[in-house]
This record gives sequence, structure tokens and C-alpha cells, in this order.
Amino acid sequence: MKKIFVIGAGLSSSDLIKYLLDNATALDWTVKVGDLSLESAKKKVNNHPKGIAVLFDINDQKQLKDEVAWADIVVSMLPAFMHPAVAKECVSQGKLMATASYVSDAMRTLDAEVKQKGLTILNELGVDPGIDHMSAMKVIDEIKGKGGKILGFISNTGGLIAPESDNNPWNYKFTWNPRNVVLAGQGVAQFIENGQYKFIPYHRLYSRARTFSVLNYGDFEMYPNRDSLSYRKVYDLNDIQTLIRGTLRKAGYCKAWNVFVQLGATDDTYKIPESENLTNRSFINSFLAYDSKLSVEEKIKKEVAEANDPVVFEKLKWLGIFEDKKIGLPNASPAQVLQKILEEKLFLGSNDKDMIVMQHIFDYELNGKKFRKKSSMVIIGKDTVHTAMSITVGTPLAIAVKLLLTDEIKDKGVVIPTKPNLYLPILKELEAYGVKFIEEEEAL
Amino acid sequence: MKKIFVIGAGLSSSDLIKYLLDNATALDWTVKVGDLSLESAKKKVNNHPKGIAVLFDINDQKQLKDEVAWADIVVSMLPAFMHPAVAKECVSQGKLMATASYVSDAMRTLDAEVKQKGLTILNELGVDPGIDHMSAMKVIDEIKGKGGKILGFISNTGGLIAPESDNNPWNYKFTWNPRNVVLAGQGVAQFIENGQYKFIPYHRLYSRARTFSVLNYGDFEMYPNRDSLSYRKVYDLNDIQTLIRGTLRKAGYCKAWNVFVQLGATDDTYKIPESENLTNRSFINSFLAYDSKLSVEEKIKKEVAEANDPVVFEKLKWLGIFEDKKIGLPNASPAQVLQKILEEKLFLGSNDKDMIVMQHIFDYELNGKKFRKKSSMVIIGKDTVHTAMSITVGTPLAIAVKLLLTDEIKDKGVVIPTKPNLYLPILKELEAYGVKFIEEEEAL
Repeated sequence: MKKIFVIGAGLSSSDLIKYLLDNATALDWTVKVGDLSLESAKKKVNNHPKGIAVLFDINDQKQLKDEVAWADIVVSMLPAFMHPAVAKECVSQGKLMATASYVSDAMRTLDAEVKQKGLTILNELGVDPGIDHMSAMKVIDEIKGKGGKILGFISNTGGLIAPESDNNPWNYKFTWNPRNVVLAGQGVAQFIENGQYKFIPYHRLYSRARTFSVLNYGDFEMYPNRDSLSYRKVYDLNDIQTLIRGTLRKAGYCKAWNVFVQLGATDDTYKIPESENLTNRSFINSFLAYDSKLSVEEKIKKEVAEANDPVVFEKLKWLGIFEDKKIGLPNASPAQVLQKILEEKLFLGSNDKDMIVMQHIFDYELNGKKFRKKSSMVIIGKDTVHTAMSITVGTPLAIAVKLLLTDEIKDKGVVIPTKPNLYLPILKELEAYGVKFIEEEEAL
Repeated sequence: MKKIFVIGAGLSSSDLIKYLLDNATALDWTVKVGDLSLESAKKKVNNHPKGIAVLFDINDQKQLKDEVAWADIVVSMLPAFMHPAVAKECVSQGKLMATASYVSDAMRTLDAEVKQKGLTILNELGVDPGIDHMSAMKVIDEIKGKGGKILGFISNTGGLIAPESDNNPWNYKFTWNPRNVVLAGQGVAQFIENGQYKFIPYHRLYSRARTFSVLNYGDFEMYPNRDSLSYRKVYDLNDIQTLIRGTLRKAGYCKAWNVFVQLGATDDTYKIPESENLTNRSFINSFLAYDSKLSVEEKIKKEVAEANDPVVFEKLKWLGIFEDKKIGLPNASPAQVLQKILEEKLFLGSNDKDMIVMQHIFDYELNGKKFRKKSSMVIIGKDTVHTAMSITVGTPLAIAVKLLLTDEIKDKGVVIPTKPNLYLPILKELEAYGVKFIEEEEAL
């Protein structure tokens, strides 16, 4: 009998826990779910005979020690910065661990010790990072295996609203953490394109979005992520001429969102004095020059070019940003105030479905000819519990846990799924859950 | 006999040390100057019979202790973050101290202990902060003394090139730390205008510059400083409707500088990979979208609106930013690379003179009538040693040291010069050094 301890029973754990419980009887597992809310843990376990729900507080050192002692493997769905504390306990007690998160520097430093003890810590096994790595590496290894040389690689992912629930002018709803959406793109986007390093500051990111069409789902806009350069090493594409990783939004989103960026309304670095007195309208006005004659609407058009597009202006108006409606957030940053305004309109309704869109585009050379291969995946959530986000974050992680417990993964150390022995079985099994990549290829 | 220990013999110490030595015989002072470069210290002391030059390393704890023990007062011209270490030693040995820098949080926390020991640490006694406080508070106290109510206060300062040395298209040269000029304005400008809080993000700061004329020196552009709001408390103007502190440049500068801001070329938050291979041209190109057909000049005009102004484009071209000239800076941020390019052209020549421009504009109400009072000061440096910057940073500090040593300042604690017993005698004596405020008044 194998014992699995899952930490965190939030939204993105739904399909992870479901998979583990669905397999628990056949594979003789006990699945214990710990969360700060016992109710959430119970809900996810749903009285399954092989399931246990417990109240778990990561700050309780003794409880962490005890639960790690009980388990064969710990699956952490905590925020990424909390993983190292769990990892250290697992390593010290000789236990396995798995997460969906990026390998932080703190995790990376454990690698030698994990290896030396013959243990495995699996990471980056969600959707992005996770499915993106696996599906990309599959194509990269195939092209290289045929003797091809990869010239360019653009990889785009978006967490969006499904077409059947897409009923607002932004073609967008918050299908994951709204705070991350408000702050998205901050910093500097760094990538390489046709052999040239390119840098895009945040204030120009949304105006430099590019359009991509994905299967028959229409046009999407992509803005580059902060760091594309480090993926040359991750994907072993060190002399590639173009490598860009980006985020997808439905067409039209970026031009409208850019209004908030230009205003400075997404800034999270300072608190607005007396923010509790702000209304939607006075919030927007605080970023516009004082003028005794012009209205806020007139000033935003005068100062931000994008707002002169009637389609953009309609989007802004629909959000209610010009309304004299009190917000009531004390000691808040512009980003926090903006998030509050947006949440009133862009929330995911109880009948809404989300959608994950991922597309890789490879330019490569084979036998003197150039080709472009696209590998695209679109998955739509079942409901507001089994969202596309939960399916794609939780299922690959759950499959990897199974492979590890059944000894099919023998890699030791701090591991990410960029090798065929991991990505092949996981991608294959994911197809049954709707995660299917469709390939298109053309000669260039 | 009083003993003064001056730490730092850099450019801005010239007039401080000159004043102290000029007064040393009459007032029976010994002036010891310590610097990491003994040569610099000797140069400033210039064999004066009351002067001593020593090699001084702030990181040498024992030397710091010994020199503080020797001195009656320590004048620190070190970078501001180094003051607290000196201050703690002074307080512990019961010695006085003076600086030209802003009171940091670390300095502020010493206030109670300094007071309790009956000591004084003078701060903000340079030009900005320093002369700005003193000259502003003089007018504020006068208006309030007559029963007037101050409605608005705009206070602008610039370190610029003197008209007689102003011979390049930017009407600007580096008259102080170039790095600070490249980074100037980063963060968010926060101020209050007509009762409304206003926030300007960095990427819009230079396009929202306003024009002010100062005496007969022509037009200057002002962009607001990061923090104007805290000056409501400093100047005791808590219910003021407008308070803006800004930085002055000659007219035309901001529109051209904005090109670098828009590109992202002033960013100091990341290092450019392989920066040692950059040329001026490839540096600029790295911020522009890849295009196989357009030149860098064509792309900059396409992407940055300001560059289409022929006057702006001439300024850019004059700097050599389109030249294929190797820069050779390894592991450098965009800001560091840009600084290197600019230093080639904007350096202060050996016959050049600098200029400090300061202007306060007060709107106030008195007996039911509204008035606007301007108080303006322009000072031009004597040469490249006795610059306007050195005169205005060093002289008020030196005068304050004299007042403290002759017991004319009796304030205890961590003090800034916002009270008449400090600002009146200092401003009066400064007039002999060319620091003269000219007042203009009109009814509104």
C-alpha cells in the first residue's frame, strides 16, 4: 500500500485529487488531503473509502513532520515559495515529492542531496509549466531525431473563457487568479528573434502584441513573456535564432488593456493616499492631467491614443470605469483598486466554462528544405470545478505521481518533464482527458 | 580651538572645504579632510596652515572611531546611505555632525537619542534638499505672517549648463552624476493639484512636462519629482490644494529624452546578454521590433512618435546613437550602456560652467484677493572646480557648521533647516556667494 499526502484543496487541486482517488483502489493507494479549511479537504475527498481529509497548517512544524513521516509521497499544491520547506522535510525523511510549479533556486540547490539519497522531486508538471514543456520537447526531439535543425520556436499559452461562455466585450473573464492577470507582463520581455536579442518594456508590451490563429478558434493576440531566453537551455536549443514564449488573449484585448497600462493603473508599487474615498471615476481621473474644462472621458481620449478607438472605448465604458461609484478599498495600490473594479464585471459565472489554448510553432530545416510545424491544443472545462485549468494543472501531476509510485520513472534528483521517459507516457494518458495536440505542417 | 573632520574630498566638497579653511584662522578651527584618495584630500586642503589631509576609509572601524574622537564635528559628504554609520559613532562619542543629504529613516530613528544627549545632527543643507527648503520656508512664513493662506506651491530646481557653455542640441551637459541623470524620474510621480491626487507613471512623465520661464533665462521644462506629497508635512502646508516639486531642463529636452524612456533604454533592472558586443546602433535596435526591410532610423520613427520631430531626431543623431561603434561594456544594464554613449557627448568641458536654477511659485490669498509670488534664483559656476553645484551644496552646509560651532544654532536632535533661526542667517550669508532669490509678484 502506498500513501499519498496532497497539500492544498483549492480549485486547481480538483482534478489532481479526483485522478488519485479514481486510481486508489486499483493501485492500493491511500490519499490524504490536507488544507487550512477542513471543509475544502472533505469536499474534495467526498467520502471516498481510500481518502482521508485533514486540517493541515503548513506553519505547524510538527504536523508537517508527522504527515511527511506518514506519506510515501507528498504532492504540494501550495504557492511555489512554500515548496522548499516541504521539500527539505521530505529529503530529510527520505520521501518523494511532486509539484506543478517552476523549480525555484531554493529547490534547485536541493538537487545534489536528493540525488545522493536516491530520491525524486518532480516539478513543472502542470499546464504552463508542464504540458508546454512536454508537448514542445516531443516535437523538438522528433525533428532532431529525423536530422532536422530547429531555427525558430514560438510557444504561446492562454487561460481564457470558452467560446460558449464568451459574452462580454473584452472576450475575457477571470478564469484564474485576478491579481496575476492585472499584473501580467510587468518587467521587461526578453527574447531572441532572427538572431537578435529583443527587449520590450512593460509600457510597450501590449502595443506590440502579435496575432496568431489557433485551429478553428479564431484569432488570438500574443504578448511575449518576461523570460524567453532561459528556455534555450531548458529545451536544449542553444543556437536557435528565434525563441519567444508568450501569453494569449482573444483578439482586441491587448489594445484595450493597454489603456490601463498607459495610465499607470496596474501599478502595484505604491499605495494611493486616502484610497478608501476613491470612486471608479476619480481613480481613473487621478492618472489624467488636471483640467478644469474637460471631462474624464474627454481627457482619457486626449491623453491615451488607444481610447479613441470606439471599440476600445466601449470596452472601457462597459467595465464601469467612468461611474461615480465608491470602491471602498483602504490603503490600496492602483493594481488592487483596478482588480476590484474588474472583478465586478469579469468574474466567472456559475455556468461559465473556461478554456486553455496552447500553440507551439516550430520553423525547421530538414534536407535543405524549410518547414513550419504547428502543434496546437485547446481544452474546454467541464464546469466551474473541473475547469480546463484544473484538468491541465492537476492531471499531468497526478499521472506523474502514479508513474513514480509504480517505478516507471526512475530519474533521481530535482526533475522536470523534458525527457521522453516522462513526457511520452504522460502525454499519451492525457489524451483521454481531452489534452490532445493537433499538428499542422507547411513548407516555407 | 574647534576641530572639524570632513569626510569626502570629491567635486561637491570644494566650496565646503574652501569656506571652512577661509574661516579657520579667524575662528580658530582645524579642518581635517579625509578621503579614500589622499591626493584629492591634499588638493582640497592646498597646504592651508589650518588644514590636514588624511587617507580615510569609512570601512575602517578603528579609523572612524579615532577621527570622531579627534573631532568636535564631523561633516559627511559620503553617499547618503553611509551617513548612519558615521552618525552612530558621533552620537556614541557625543559629537556633532552635519550632512547635505536627505534624512533617511535610519537617521530619523536616531533623533530621540541625539536629543537626549543634547547633540545636533544637521541635514538637508545642500541645494536640493537645502536651499530649496530655506528659500521656500522664508516666503511661506512671510505670507503666513501677514495672515495669508497658501493655496498652491510649485517648486522647481535644475542642475544645468550655463548659457555661455550651452553649445549642443540638447542644451544639456552632465554637471553632476551622469547615472542619476539617466535614471531620473523612475518610479511614480505623486503630487496634489487643485485638491486632486495625481499620479504619473515614468513612461508618461516626460511627455507631461510643463513649461516655466525663469527670470530672463528663457523657458524651462519641468517634470514632477517622485514624491511631492510628503512636503505638505515638511513645509507645514497640510491643507494646500496644489503642491508639486519638479526638476528643470531647458526647453526641448524632455521630448527628446522621452525617446529613450519609451524605448526602455534607461532600464537598470536587468543586464543585457552579451552586452560587450553591442554597438550604439545594435543597442537601440534591441528595443525595436525585428524588421528585415526597415533601417533602425526608420523603425525608431515608426515606433516612437517623438522621433518624427526633426528637432528631436537631430538631437538623437548628434549623440551618435545610430553609429555602428562598439561600446564594450560587459554585463551592463540598458541604463549603463546608455550612460556610456551619452558621456561621450554630454561631458562637461574644461572651460564649461554649470548653472543651478531654482524657482518657487506660490499662489496665495490675502484679504480676499489672490496673488502669485515667484521667488527665483540662478547661479552660474566659476569654473569646473567651483561649480554652481559645489557652491550651492557646500556653502550652506559650511555656514551651518559655523553657526553650530559658534553656538548660534541651539536646536537639538536630527534637524533640517525649515525654521527661521536656521534659514535666515544662512540665506543672508549665501547672498555674498551669489545665491540670491529674486521675487516677482502679481495679482491673480
